[in-house]
Amino acid sequence: MPEPLPLGSTIGILGGGQLGRMLALAAARLGFKAHIYCPDKASAAFDVTPRKTVAAYDDLAALAAFAAVVDVITYEFENVPSGTAEFLAPLKPLRPGANALAIAQDRLAEKTFIGHLGIPVAPHRPVHALTDLAPALASLGTPAILKTTRLGYDGKGQRQIATLAEAEAAFAELQPHPLVLEAFIPFVREISVVLARGLDGATAAFDPAANTHEAGILVTSSVPAAISPETATAAQRFAADIASALDYVGVLGVEFFVLADGSLIVNEMAPRVHNTGHWTEAVCVADQFEQHIRAIAGWPLGDPTRLADAVMENLIGDEIGAIPARLGPGIRPHAYGKAESRPGRKMGHLTRISIKSSTK
Amino acid sequence: MPEPLPLGSTIGILGGGQLGRMLALAAARLGFKAHIYCPDKASAAFDVTPRKTVAAYDDLAALAAFAAVVDVITYEFENVPSGTAEFLAPLKPLRPGANALAIAQDRLAEKTFIGHLGIPVAPHRPVHALTDLAPALASLGTPAILKTTRLGYDGKGQRQIATLAEAEAAFAELQPHPLVLEAFIPFVREISVVLARGLDGATAAFDPAANTHEAGILVTSSVPAAISPETATAAQRFAADIASALDYVGVLGVEFFVLADGSLIVNEMAPRVHNTGHWTEAVCVADQFEQHIRAIAGWPLGDPTRLADAVMENLIGDEIGAIPARLGPGIRPHAYGKAESRPGRKMGHLTRISIKSSTK
Repeated sequence: MPEPLPLGSTIGILGGGQLGRMLALAAARLGFKAHIYCPDKASAAFDVTPRKTVAAYDDLAALAAFAAVVDVITYEFENVPSGTAEFLAPLKPLRPGANALAIAQDRLAEKTFIGHLGIPVAPHRPVHALTDLAPALASLGTPAILKTTRLGYDGKGQRQIATLAEAEAAFAELQPHPLVLEAFIPFVREISVVLARGLDGATAAFDPAANTHEAGILVTSSVPAAISPETATAAQRFAADIASALDYVGVLGVEFFVLADGSLIVNEMAPRVHNTGHWTEAVCVADQFEQHIRAIAGWPLGDPTRLADAVMENLIGDEIGAIPARLGPGIRPHAYGKAESRPGRKMGHLTRISIKSSTK
Repeated sequence: MPEPLPLGSTIGILGGGQLGRMLALAAARLGFKAHIYCPDKASAAFDVTPRKTVAAYDDLAALAAFAAVVDVITYEFENVPSGTAEFLAPLKPLRPGANALAIAQDRLAEKTFIGHLGIPVAPHRPVHALTDLAPALASLGTPAILKTTRLGYDGKGQRQIATLAEAEAAFAELQPHPLVLEAFIPFVREISVVLARGLDGATAAFDPAANTHEAGILVTSSVPAAISPETATAAQRFAADIASALDYVGVLGVEFFVLADGSLIVNEMAPRVHNTGHWTEAVCVADQFEQHIRAIAGWPLGDPTRLADAVMENLIGDEIGAIPARLGPGIRPHAYGKAESRPGRKMGHLTRISIKSSTK
């Protein structure tokens, strides 16, 4: 086991959005410095540290200079180019590792990997060519979902399909190829587990959250989720199994469909802190950002215990105007400091905390 | 009432220590930028924002440039020179105001002000000259405490006195003059109230904390304090009365002695976020740093409700080595990112959270 990263070390973070920003804030609370690497000079994360690199992800000179001034490297998004990860990994510890990135970047590879662990995933077929669509639809039935295997997020890169004609139209629109056709899962609820795994292999899962989406974008995450203790335990165990199989270090988000009988199907995973874990900052002993930093620093993981019930609500686009207008008792606000509000852009969130009188 | 400060505005903070740093982190969570002004180029707060001024507090050109790029000005310490406050106040809103600073900087003025509100303070006598000592000791009895009226903190600038000879020796040592002789208070407990007052005059007090000190330096703050509900309510009311009388905006810390009968005597106040309020970040809906930023931004105050019991322990000097070594279940760490550990220097803190099974 390497020594824990000493106080005062510098955490290098690829990506300057709200997740990078919240990671940098958590790093500061733990006595670390943060260095943000992002091509966008208006990145929100640049406001919370004096250490930054504004350069493209394929700028090898900039990447080398970045690696030279940081002690460990992490990222806020799973679409870090594989060339970037491969270039950085020999220079400084890259956590989570390049294999987690490679698998999470490819929806087919991810499903195959998770399925091989004996964890249920949605029935699916690869779609390399137009001629793959008819047999795939015949096998999976309709409705089905046609998705890109790469670069999808917030509901982008996917279409619900009822007919072969719709599938063919979607095939022409969705890029890049190949695609994957997934069976429609008649779920009763969407949940997620945000889990941390340390350098020593220890894992710590937060309570599963129940999530709602609109137009593919997360709207709310609520704890506790209305699921049985058995379903909650199974979801946490599946997430731990995935993390262990990847020899993962850091925070991992795993989204599940819950079926009527309480059984689970993994929808997708994200090798990073996760929007459905933002409630943890409001009500947990250690939040997901602290857990991620502690994990990649080789520190013991924090305590994920939840002190109260909570509902996290994303503020999308102009909804950011809810801060400070809509603040009231039990509400904890978080604004990401983004200069420009655009439709569909995540600008902040509110966590509504259910205060239990017994805790007073 | 002025409009609430818009998201994206810049908070100017005088002082770059751990309190300035934690204020800057809270400002970021609320969607503000932070600009730190501090003469010490190695300030811990410089690590959490790209916006800084390294200049003396009497550098008028630097102060003017600072005022020009911020939207509101606050401070992390009560010893901001009065000339600095007077220069800045006409340029941008200075919150809390110059009058709170002036009173808190002078132990005699503070006691007079609080006493005039009908709030008990320790019996005391001004000591301008050596010849004031004998009558003051005769009047107050021994033991007594001889203190500077200005620039005292963490137990510096005071001596316990048993005899006139000791008083005369202390008079020669303690600077600057005048001094104040205070009667020794046979307290059973030390508590503090950290309270926020908004621009609209609303107040929100955190639960009183019970504090322990060693060699004048805070060691622990615990909530709930072992005091009656009546004593707790009285302490919160006294703090609110002081804040209202000052037309105060921001977070105020008021320290009290609790006597055997539960009655209270104000020991001192601090016009800023307070070390005895650090536990709030671990267990409250809104912590003291968020409250301060919300208050000075003209936002509605946050919810001070406490979700769990807590004990905050300061990490002084080499005790910072407790992070990460001594972390365990229920413990939330905070390190201040100071490069150099020195005896007596506050380097970080741990909050031990009592997890109630009923909240799971």
